[in-house]
Amino acid sequence: MSLEDRVMELAAETPPPDERAVAEARQRHLTLTKPPGSLGRLEDLGARLAGMAGECPPPAPESPAVVVCAGDHGVLDQGVSPWPREVTAAMVRNFCAGGAAVNAVAKIVGARVSVLDVGVASELDRHPSLRGAKVRLGTDDLSRGLAMGREEAARAVLAGAGVAEELVESGGVDLLVTGDMGIGNTTPAAALISAFTGHPAGETTGRGTGIDDETYDLKVRVVREALELHAPDPGDPIGVLGAVGGLEHAAIVGVILMGAACGAPVVLDGVVSNAAALAARALAPDSVGYVVAGHLSAEPGARIALDSLGLQPLLDLDMRLGEGTGGLLAVPLVQAAARALGEMATLEELGFG
Amino acid sequence: MSLEDRVMELAAETPPPDERAVAEARQRHLTLTKPPGSLGRLEDLGARLAGMAGECPPPAPESPAVVVCAGDHGVLDQGVSPWPREVTAAMVRNFCAGGAAVNAVAKIVGARVSVLDVGVASELDRHPSLRGAKVRLGTDDLSRGLAMGREEAARAVLAGAGVAEELVESGGVDLLVTGDMGIGNTTPAAALISAFTGHPAGETTGRGTGIDDETYDLKVRVVREALELHAPDPGDPIGVLGAVGGLEHAAIVGVILMGAACGAPVVLDGVVSNAAALAARALAPDSVGYVVAGHLSAEPGARIALDSLGLQPLLDLDMRLGEGTGGLLAVPLVQAAARALGEMATLEELGFG
Repeated sequence: MSLEDRVMELAAETPPPDERAVAEARQRHLTLTKPPGSLGRLEDLGARLAGMAGECPPPAPESPAVVVCAGDHGVLDQGVSPWPREVTAAMVRNFCAGGAAVNAVAKIVGARVSVLDVGVASELDRHPSLRGAKVRLGTDDLSRGLAMGREEAARAVLAGAGVAEELVESGGVDLLVTGDMGIGNTTPAAALISAFTGHPAGETTGRGTGIDDETYDLKVRVVREALELHAPDPGDPIGVLGAVGGLEHAAIVGVILMGAACGAPVVLDGVVSNAAALAARALAPDSVGYVVAGHLSAEPGARIALDSLGLQPLLDLDMRLGEGTGGLLAVPLVQAAARALGEMATLEELGFG
Repeated sequence: MSLEDRVMELAAETPPPDERAVAEARQRHLTLTKPPGSLGRLEDLGARLAGMAGECPPPAPESPAVVVCAGDHGVLDQGVSPWPREVTAAMVRNFCAGGAAVNAVAKIVGARVSVLDVGVASELDRHPSLRGAKVRLGTDDLSRGLAMGREEAARAVLAGAGVAEELVESGGVDLLVTGDMGIGNTTPAAALISAFTGHPAGETTGRGTGIDDETYDLKVRVVREALELHAPDPGDPIGVLGAVGGLEHAAIVGVILMGAACGAPVVLDGVVSNAAALAARALAPDSVGYVVAGHLSAEPGARIALDSLGLQPLLDLDMRLGEGTGGLLAVPLVQAAARALGEMATLEELGFG
């Protein structure tokens, strides 16, 4: 079976969320010791979790993990970011050493940090937190040719799926957070969001780590050129990923698809994860049912992608760091949504039925 | 010393936040392994925490507690809520039994739940989680006369301060969350917000637990009548609390003042806490420096109060439950803001200084 066929097979494994459990959760919320609707968006989220789990009340996630997918980008040669490529590898080492923002946040919410090297442009030392599944030493420049092509995109998707499967099936993980690291990776994120939503480069492109006006104009032009060069077909998500994606974007697609296949909630971080979720939906429309938008990245493409997915972000803190930080911060909200359904007394039990 | 004098003495104990530590935190954020500003509002929050603690990095709160202040309201006789007064006591029992939303959320964020009966309209059985400091069996109808008067308001403030002091000084608590329970208590909250901000009753009054149009019109009229009857002077916060406040509102003022006096962050829940924070500021202007707006309640007065306080809420989930639920959900964000400052490696350590 080809790698692409294996991706399609995985995509076909996504069960539709259980609408009966969703309805049961909505009904249950009316019976709990609180005014109806007073938990606001946590009530909707609880109902969605019931749909993912196929039961009401849904189990409260107790063992979250963030998968930080890392890769490098040939398009960096165009000058789309002021940071050197070497920062990607240095930050991967920082994740392993526990010195990054993602480590600090993961500790607070009790999440494991799993780093996946799917395309860092240098060889990395082994580390217990690091899964080596390098597809290639970074992508090629998507504004000049294919970023990687179909087969490598499929391989990266499967690498992400593999880590997710291991965490859920062997590691007892019951909630996945998507994270990313890759200097230059908001450029392919913008291109992917344009490809899947039809919004022009000028709307989907942002300032990433914080670039000046000149670099921003260049970045928009680069994204536009990539879209003109490849004319990516949103009906062919593997082709889109291969043409204008990044290795970590593709890996996150795999994390989402495997999470959905396992019935586990997948909490998205920022714009790179949002772009990946569009590709995941193109492969498996029901995967959106397992995806929770953790936060709204400050990148403009994030809102466009989430609107297209029909997802409302839980947090809006003007963050734009990546790594999974924004997704991790939303984990307690997901847990609260499930626990409220599972642990609250009913009005009847209190004598007000 | 009179009760009022004791409140004024407590208010005078609030140290101004340490601006040197704030500046140090802002500077430190520029050196950490992330793009400058990429942690968004968590960076500001971290700097504020440094100011509260008087050191940078600030200690990360590890032992949070929510103080759920409970009281009843004479104004309920006007028909401002469809729920009977008995629900207040029943919910207090529910908190003690662990069956309420606040219990579910507290468990997730590792917070202690401390319930303070400062004015429930019936006698309650003893329980380890319940502090009995009943000032009276609920307030009188604020639209017909004084809700309680100055001395009882001061007594309720001191009751809240007493619980907060015990938690922080003896209990090792390093972060306080304010919570409330009291059927009818969004009516005095609206009156307090109008009194302190000058906004009319029609802007500060909301639908509380979810009332119909007719009840809403009545509620606005009741708040307006109370304001006309008492013409509360915002420069006399004890007088305002005594005229149009609630016992739990006053107790929360005490929690805020004591938290500030101890240098502990105080995370506000919804509109009742927001109203109390206005009174706390009128007593001790620097107390705002220790207050974190946990979430934006769906009640319209919440936004008015927070704007007046110059605070931006961390969460906006359309919640309107009270109990401290929205405040508790913001605790991991506060912890993350502190830990990012304290635990992240610097760019220099990574070789990119």
